[in-house]
Amino acid sequence: MPVTNVAREAGEAPSLAPLIDMLSGDMAGVNATILERMESEVPLIPQLAGHLIASGGKRMRPMMTVAGAMMGSHDAATRAPAILLATAVEFIHSATLLHDDVIDESRLRRGQDTANALWGNDASVLVGDFLFARAFELMVEAGDITVLGRLAAAAAEITEGEIRQMAITGQPDTPVDDYFDVIRGKTAVLFSAAAAAGIEVTGAPAEHVEAMRVYGMELGMAFQIMDDALDYTATAAQMGKNAGDDFIDQKITLPTILAWQDGDAPEREFWQRTLGSADFEEGDLAQAQAILARHDAVNRSVAVAHDHALAAGAALAPFMEEARTAPLARALANAALFAAHRAS
Amino acid sequence: MPVTNVAREAGEAPSLAPLIDMLSGDMAGVNATILERMESEVPLIPQLAGHLIASGGKRMRPMMTVAGAMMGSHDAATRAPAILLATAVEFIHSATLLHDDVIDESRLRRGQDTANALWGNDASVLVGDFLFARAFELMVEAGDITVLGRLAAAAAEITEGEIRQMAITGQPDTPVDDYFDVIRGKTAVLFSAAAAAGIEVTGAPAEHVEAMRVYGMELGMAFQIMDDALDYTATAAQMGKNAGDDFIDQKITLPTILAWQDGDAPEREFWQRTLGSADFEEGDLAQAQAILARHDAVNRSVAVAHDHALAAGAALAPFMEEARTAPLARALANAALFAAHRAS
Repeated sequence: MPVTNVAREAGEAPSLAPLIDMLSGDMAGVNATILERMESEVPLIPQLAGHLIASGGKRMRPMMTVAGAMMGSHDAATRAPAILLATAVEFIHSATLLHDDVIDESRLRRGQDTANALWGNDASVLVGDFLFARAFELMVEAGDITVLGRLAAAAAEITEGEIRQMAITGQPDTPVDDYFDVIRGKTAVLFSAAAAAGIEVTGAPAEHVEAMRVYGMELGMAFQIMDDALDYTATAAQMGKNAGDDFIDQKITLPTILAWQDGDAPEREFWQRTLGSADFEEGDLAQAQAILARHDAVNRSVAVAHDHALAAGAALAPFMEEARTAPLARALANAALFAAHRAS
Repeated sequence: MPVTNVAREAGEAPSLAPLIDMLSGDMAGVNATILERMESEVPLIPQLAGHLIASGGKRMRPMMTVAGAMMGSHDAATRAPAILLATAVEFIHSATLLHDDVIDESRLRRGQDTANALWGNDASVLVGDFLFARAFELMVEAGDITVLGRLAAAAAEITEGEIRQMAITGQPDTPVDDYFDVIRGKTAVLFSAAAAAGIEVTGAPAEHVEAMRVYGMELGMAFQIMDDALDYTATAAQMGKNAGDDFIDQKITLPTILAWQDGDAPEREFWQRTLGSADFEEGDLAQAQAILARHDAVNRSVAVAHDHALAAGAALAPFMEEARTAPLARALANAALFAAHRAS
């Protein structure tokens, strides 16, 4: 394998804990800023946004920004604009979640009723728009128009990714590169821009910004491939959403593409009837899982995610040499491996 | 009346034509930029956005930006960033229209099928998000972070206005000030920010920026009050949408508030059953129009719009004295009067 598994060389088990630990101070600032900046004179906004944001998630995306800033500077004052940017990143992400749940008609996210299930689609669309606009206000406050441009471009690419996803929905013969385009846009680009923005705003050199950009992109790819693979294995309790949701929604993901590529005629007929035509019968999810198992499609997907996680770690090479940045670089490489191993 | 009707003093009939004429050069640039910047590798985006944007409208909001820039500078190069900002303003407006049509489940806008009627709600939500993100990319290109902050704040206030509107929907006893808050947010703030951004980006003095800000705000108020009043009088052909839509959607607007305030018990019962409970019967729209006529509620609303139009013109006083800016100031004052007179 061409890339080096830095975390494994260091003898560390894949874990998010060291990273969470190192970033806890700045992330406390982000969490406080999130609560403060979702406020509005219009009570529904903090209510609805708070329901989504308080229900948690790992805050992986703002952690990218905070990690980037810490990589760029050990001085808390220099990192202060990154706190605003990290909050903006979480708001952009939250806005897309609110709109996604409207589009997918989801009723459950992170083990809770979705905002659209509780307040209706109208409120979710509008509060999503509000968080999106507020994100740009925060970026303006951060004061760096180059960084703002980076995040604005990411926001546009996210929607392009989501629309591409709509276009391949129900097409079980989707080429694998089209799938990678979708997840790069809908997921990896925000991880990438978040990480790059964090270090860029501290005034770091271009090659360091680029290293964090690549790290975020590779981590984001690993993250989404795993998320898609787990949809066919996890229970609702593990996922915080309903297992098999992607199947019912006719979403085309890496496991189904691999199984389609290697499938025989009856299997392809099955995928066409279910993913293609949404003509579902009792027992179809179990049948889908059996076909995926026959082609080892979930494990092969996890292996692809793992390769991206390794590439994420490898991108951090410029930070591995310096005593100040090496521990954080190791923690980030480790977090990438964790993202590709969370099934175990 | 405390404010001066400058256009009427100049003996001009309310018309948009002189303004359109003066701005035609820069607006041609805006129209070209709109077409260019709605492009994407994802074909659905230019298709759907093009359907909405090509179907026209008067482009009043980008005209505000272009007018502001022209007020600030006679030099085309100095005005170039304003072309990008005007395009951004139209994209923000288009995004809100796409989302509004999803929320209102509208099937008809400007005499055409809505995008959601043709492509579905999912596509409208996502393409709206794309246009919103693209708007911020354009603002970054324009290169002035103060101006960007002004438009980002406006974007947040728009959604606050829309959510406030949701909150008063179905409440016929809404106080008139709550209605003014709604339309200030959902409509006037964008007119205002658009006009101020256009002149601000040319480096004009603060009091001139403020004059254009107030002009845009007052014009926006006049515009929305008229739009709401016309909903009870115009035919589908005049409006490009279905007459009585607001009534069926239980929207609370100035005519219904005035009629409620002056209404007797049976009338209030009628408003409660219809606007309040959506318990509609055959002939209710005609009945609503009869009650509004009894209280002269539409004409009284038009008079309020007219007052705002006069205030818009009065705000332009600083530009009336200079030979270079006076003709444009007169055209703008005239356009404001036109906005409050388009029923006739």
